[in-house]
Parts: sequence; structure tokens; C-alpha cells
Amino acid sequence: MENHDFGVVGLGVMGRNLLLNMADHKFAVAGLDLDAEKASALATEAKPDQDAKGTTSAEEFVSMLRKPRAIMLLVPAGKPVDSAIASLVPLLDKGDIIIDGGNSYFPDTNRRIAELEEKGIHFFGMGISGGEKGARFGPSMMPGGDKQAYERLRPVFEAIAAKVDGEPCVTYLGAGSAGNYVKMVHNGIEYGIMQLISEVYDLLKRGLGFSDEKLQQMFAEWNEGELKSFLIEITGIVLKKTDDETGKLLVNLISDQAKAKGTGKWTSQNAMDLQAPIPTIDAAVNMRDLSKYKEERVEASKKLTDTPTAHTSSDDEILKSLKEAYYFAMINIYAQGLAQLHIASKEYNYGLKLEDVAKIWRGGCIIRAVCLEDFRKAYARNADLPNILLDDEIGKSLVATQTSARNVIKLAIDKGIPTPAFATALGYYDAYRSERMATNLIQAQRDYFGAHTYERIDKTGTFHTKWD
Amino acid sequence: MENHDFGVVGLGVMGRNLLLNMADHKFAVAGLDLDAEKASALATEAKPDQDAKGTTSAEEFVSMLRKPRAIMLLVPAGKPVDSAIASLVPLLDKGDIIIDGGNSYFPDTNRRIAELEEKGIHFFGMGISGGEKGARFGPSMMPGGDKQAYERLRPVFEAIAAKVDGEPCVTYLGAGSAGNYVKMVHNGIEYGIMQLISEVYDLLKRGLGFSDEKLQQMFAEWNEGELKSFLIEITGIVLKKTDDETGKLLVNLISDQAKAKGTGKWTSQNAMDLQAPIPTIDAAVNMRDLSKYKEERVEASKKLTDTPTAHTSSDDEILKSLKEAYYFAMINIYAQGLAQLHIASKEYNYGLKLEDVAKIWRGGCIIRAVCLEDFRKAYARNADLPNILLDDEIGKSLVATQTSARNVIKLAIDKGIPTPAFATALGYYDAYRSERMATNLIQAQRDYFGAHTYERIDKTGTFHTKWD
Repeated sequence: MENHDFGVVGLGVMGRNLLLNMADHKFAVAGLDLDAEKASALATEAKPDQDAKGTTSAEEFVSMLRKPRAIMLLVPAGKPVDSAIASLVPLLDKGDIIIDGGNSYFPDTNRRIAELEEKGIHFFGMGISGGEKGARFGPSMMPGGDKQAYERLRPVFEAIAAKVDGEPCVTYLGAGSAGNYVKMVHNGIEYGIMQLISEVYDLLKRGLGFSDEKLQQMFAEWNEGELKSFLIEITGIVLKKTDDETGKLLVNLISDQAKAKGTGKWTSQNAMDLQAPIPTIDAAVNMRDLSKYKEERVEASKKLTDTPTAHTSSDDEILKSLKEAYYFAMINIYAQGLAQLHIASKEYNYGLKLEDVAKIWRGGCIIRAVCLEDFRKAYARNADLPNILLDDEIGKSLVATQTSARNVIKLAIDKGIPTPAFATALGYYDAYRSERMATNLIQAQRDYFGAHTYERIDKTGTFHTKWD
Repeated sequence: MENHDFGVVGLGVMGRNLLLNMADHKFAVAGLDLDAEKASALATEAKPDQDAKGTTSAEEFVSMLRKPRAIMLLVPAGKPVDSAIASLVPLLDKGDIIIDGGNSYFPDTNRRIAELEEKGIHFFGMGISGGEKGARFGPSMMPGGDKQAYERLRPVFEAIAAKVDGEPCVTYLGAGSAGNYVKMVHNGIEYGIMQLISEVYDLLKRGLGFSDEKLQQMFAEWNEGELKSFLIEITGIVLKKTDDETGKLLVNLISDQAKAKGTGKWTSQNAMDLQAPIPTIDAAVNMRDLSKYKEERVEASKKLTDTPTAHTSSDDEILKSLKEAYYFAMINIYAQGLAQLHIASKEYNYGLKLEDVAKIWRGGCIIRAVCLEDFRKAYARNADLPNILLDDEIGKSLVATQTSARNVIKLAIDKGIPTPAFATALGYYDAYRSERMATNLIQAQRDYFGAHTYERIDKTGTFHTKWD
């Protein structure tokens, strides 16, 4: 019996799809779910010549796995992860490996690693991106934990991962909760890009009255060049989908109250703890939050009226600028997230190689995009680059597109369309390239009212002044 | 001996000044500090006919106070507060009151209230704003805790508080950690306004080459009309101050790496937990953080160059627009913070009356400004107003100034000057007044890649679509 290569606890669509993906690569796999229907679905969905067996018994599940056992949990973050661990541990042996494949909060992962280390069990936090389809045909995977133990997992993960230029979108990322952390920031960037796309859509549709057809066409075109990316691709698809019942475009029937599951918020909150500024991700988080207040917005829309200023540019000119502006803002969003990883890696001793992170994000994951290869190259040129804005190639592309970004934001301002992602991306860029910011005045004010002291540019030390 | 009305633990400048303020109002006061110099300074600084005595002995200190005792802690937030409490409690009697006058994190206050309740001791978290001068001659105070116990404190606090139109800038705010929470958001607003002022300064000085004299004059003028406020006033003073040693303007010699003590960050992080969007306060927090990365900024300034676009408006036109733009953005910052209080009050059962909050912020505190009276009136008209943007009077003033805000941000964009406070304030306003935001697209994307489901505008329920 002890011949199965890999086990998954939690046989929802994600869990089954990952196991079926492994089975396609000739691995014998086992699944555990308390729901008998889900447990039996695994074998049903597998091909006849594949060894994929589900069970509702933890004992049977564990006994099916070859040692050292490799068991991935795909259960909701929080208590369910701890419960699953608690029920498995008595059945496991030293050297066995548990991988948490969910979006767990990274401090929880650190705690679990320490708890299981005492029992001789390796614990991995691993972000998985790509949704149900990615799980089935090739996700991007972000594992962190014990480096030696990773060798047991490597053949399986490299087989099932998405491939870009033949290279798998998975690699050992670093110690401790590195995997969860990288996935958290991945999701933060995802929030930023999605907000940015929604602003493109809003400016064109609501601000400038572009037709749905023109929008569909534009996103399809954008997906052919340097903006090619999963999120641009699916936006083109989403905008075309008609509702079966009404025959109308489905997106127009969807409520504008956006939901969130928390990873974007964690990214922003932790960035503030690290003093790693990620203003566009913050903006994405709080625009979703603002969307909640529908009744207030409806009331405000009647009171806070404005007459949009007419514009003189042609549609083609606008689309040309917008494409460059999107590129500019998108790069700044990745820059913020990657800089956060750079800072976090030092703070938490993850030992991240950002070239690897860029590499495994090139395929399989939600934020995959052709620009990731540019970032990979930038980190190949300088492994300790604190911010991709400082890379010469990337810098040049931003200098070349910044004017379009400025023009698009000005247009949106004239039309009364909120574009916080664009605006914070530009604000970040303009502040980052400020040799001297205006924060000296803030330090002076703080010293005035709170005697918080200040530093000087002409001598060292801290100083306090009686200002009046 | 037991005849002293009020005691303070921690005789730094703030503690001594508060006690001297009380002594000026005929209260007999006592102070405790382990530092003998500070303890004796209290009596030295008091007038001969005043009863103000400092000691280094906790026993003596407690024995000096009349029962039920009222003791305020002015020690650094965190462990020092717990240590001070632990050393006092054995000496106290049931019914005595401890007030934490520092910027404690509000969940700590909730914990301390619960711990001390078991011992029959009342615990208050009270924000104090106004700096050293405020403490001496009239601060704004934000107490929260047990309503009955507040009656013991009321005469002292009302006597020493700043007064506006004869009304003291202190009132019982609500249960539990209400006082600390209100002070935290006060500080978040403070961060926002300070960032906004720094952007005015940056745009005029770096972006448009205005002279220091012109800036000094402008801030002095602004402090005479509807922008009259403590922070505008001190900006005018700060910008005039010359360095004793070099004779140069001091502000120009101050380092641009801004510091922070955490209350702004807490405000932003908690707002995200509450889904209360406060984008301009977030921006203020992360601009201070960005200022840290001086070396990177210096390098970026050489690489990410831009030629500012020429402008055609006259200086006078710019100053006129800027004044209105400042008003517009400032109101939006207060709106964000006050909306957060509205949401937090419901979430944490504080029972805040926002009219009272606006009232006690009118004087004494760092964010005092003439507009606070406008907000007080707005809440007097509608006590449950979720957002001051929905008040007709305030709404009208924003509609009247929004075009100037748009023009100023466009000018800054053309000059390459980062104005995230202005931009996020406008973004907040434009999103808030959107009957329909573009977040429907985000919900569609989430359903596409994560099967997160969506809601519709034409029927109830949650839906999932196979998009391709």
C-alpha cells in the first residue's frame, strides 16, 4: 500500500485538480476528505490507468503514502489548518512533510513550523496561484520551508507546475514562511493590477462613452504585445460574455460591491509595519472597501455633481496614451510589491532570490505577464536591486511612458473618473525620484508641536528648536 | 495629607505642564517620578501659593490623593503603562481611577479596563492633544471609559481644557477604548493634513520656484480665513525661523527623512480591518515611509528624469486655485477620519457622538481648525451622518472648490511633483460620488479565476459563471 507519492487533504476542486495534474505526470496519488462524495470523485475523474484514490479515513490515507510522506493541506486558512495538522500528526513519522497550500497568514506558518519541528515533522507554507484551471494544468507554486526537505517535493512540483521556456514555475523560495509571504504579496500586486484595469474600463466607458465592443477589442489587442498578461486576457473574455438569460453583457449586470478575502489587506498592513510603501496596493484595497458603501454613493452622486471638462484628443490618441499609461502604472505596481519582498526578506531572513520570484511568476499565476521576464533580467543583472525602478532598462521604459501616464490621469481628473491606481502609481514614481522630498517640513512641524526632534543635512545628531 | 485632587505619574514636560495647568485652576496636585530632579521641578515651577508637590515615592504619592483617587499616567505606550499600573494597584482602593493619558493602542486599553474592573478600579484611556503648550495652557482631551466615574474627573478636565466660545475641549466620549480610538484617528487626520501642507510647499517651492518669502506670506494669509488652523499657523512660523548658527532658513537645513511614532499606521491598519477607506491617511503614512529610502531616491533622481511642462497661469491664479484645492482636500481628509469613527463606533459599541468629537477638536488639539465648527453643525443637523460629504452645506463647498482641486493636481502632475494627498483626496471624492463604480469588473474577474461568485443588480442571490 505505501506506494503513493503524494497526498492531499481537502478534495474540493483545487485539491482534486492538483492530484489529477500529478496523476497525468505518472505519480500515484491519494486524497482525504470527510465528504465521501468528494473522496470518491477523485478516482472517477482520474483516467483508468492512473493511480488516484480518495478516502474518508485519515488512517487509510496516511497508510497509502510512501515515506517520508508528502501531504498537502488544501483547507481554509485559520483554524481548519490547525485542526487538519492535529488530526494527522499522531499518524505520521519523523521526516514526514506537511505542506499548507492555502493562503495562510504568514505568522501562522512560522508558528506551525516551530510546533512541528519539535515533532520532527517538516512544515511548508506554499502559495499556489492559477485558480482551478492552473491547479489542473499548471499552477505557479511558491514553497517555503526546510531546504533539504524540499528535495522530496521537487520532482512532483516541477512536473505539475506551469512551464515557461521549459522551466517550471516553482522553486524553493526560502526559509520559514517565505512561501506564504511571497504569495501574499503576489495577491497584493493582483489587487493593484485589477484595480488598474477597472480604472481603464471606467475611464473609457463611463468617462468617455466608449462602446462595449471597442473595449472588448482594445483588451484583446493589448493582450498581443508588451501588455500580454493573464489579467488583460481574461478582461477581454469577461467583457464579451453575454448573460444566458437576458442576452445582455453579463459584466453590466454584476453588482459593483466588490468582495475581498484578506490577502490584499494583509499585504498593505504588513507593508506599513515594514515601512515598505505600496500606495497602489493600498488604494486597491480601499477602493474595494469603498465600493461597499453603495447607498452613500448613490446619495452622494446626486449631491456632489460636476460637469466634466470637454477633451480635444481623438479616440486613437487617447488609446495610444492609455496603453503607455497602463504599462507605466503596471510596472510601478510590481515595483512596489517586489520592493516590499526585498525589505521583508531582510527583515524576516527569508533569503529570497527575487530573480527566482520573477521567474516563477512568469507562468501559471494570476499576475503572469510578459514584463516578468524583464524583471527577471533586471534581478539577473543585480541580485540585490532594491527596486526595479532603479534598473536602467526598466527605468528607460518608464521615462518613455511617463508623459502618457500624466496625460491619462489629467484626462480622468477632467472627466471626474476616480483613478487612484494610476494616480498613486505616478505619485510613487514622482516621490521615489525626488532627491529631496518635502518631508523636511513635516519633521519641522513635528518638532514644533511635539518636540520630536529632527536631523539636519549639514551636520549629524538630533536637534530640537524652540520655534517661537 | 489626603487632600490633593489629582495625581500624575511621569513628570516629563507633558506631565508637569498638565499639573501646573491644574494648579492654575486652584486644584491641589501631586506628581510621581522616579527621577528626583523631575519630581522636585514640579514644586519649583509652580507658583508659591499653589499646592503642587512631586515625589519619588509611590506610597507617598498615593497617600497624598483624596479618594476616590484620580491618577493619570503619562508614560510611554506599551509595557511602561502596564508596569505603572502594576506598581500602583496594590496601593489603591476600590473606586479609584487610573487614566492613561498616552497614545496607547486601543486594544491594550480594552484589556486593561477588563483587568482593572475585576479589582474595582476604573481605567480610562484618554487621548491628549496640543503638545507641551497645550498641556500647559489648554489641551483638547478625549476621555473614554466608565461614564459614572467620569464625573470625578470632569471638574478638573473641564477647568484645564482649551475653551472655544466658552466651551471646554473635553467631554466624555464613550465606553471602553473610545478615547484612545478617537485620539488615534485624530492623529491619522493630523498625518493627512501635514502631508497635504507639505505638498503645497513642495509644489510652490520645488515645482514653481516660489520664494521662501512668498510661502511665508501665503501661509500667514491662509491662517486668517476659512483655512485658519493650528497646522497652517505653525507652518507659517516654521517657514520663517532662521538657524541661529548659519543664519539660513532652518527648514531648508532639515533632513527629509520623516519619522513617525505609529499612530498614523495604526489608524490605517485598523481602517483596513474595518473596511473604512481612508486613502489620504494611508498616503500620508506611506510617504513618510518612502522618505526613508534616501539613497535610492538620490539614485532614482538621476535616472528617472523628466522635463516639467510649462504652465500658463499667473502666480495669483495659482494661489487662488491652491487655496480652494487645499480646502477641498482638507475637508476630504477629515471626512475620511470621521467616517472611520462612525464605522468604528458601531463596530466597537463606543456610542460616539460625532458632534461632540467635532466640538472638542475645535480647540487645543493639533488638528483644530475653523472647519471643525462646520462639521459640528453638520452632526447637529444629523447625528447619524455617515459621512460629512453628504451634508448639504459641506457638499456645496466641495462642489464649489472641486475644479480648483482638479486644476492644482493637473499642475503638479505637469511639474512632476508628487501630490498623493491631493490626488487621493480627489480620488476618494470622485469614487464616493460614483453611483456605480467599476468594481463590477473586479467581481467578474474574481469569479473567472477563483470562482468567488458575484451578485447581480437585476436579481438577488450569488452566481457563478463559466466564463469561457
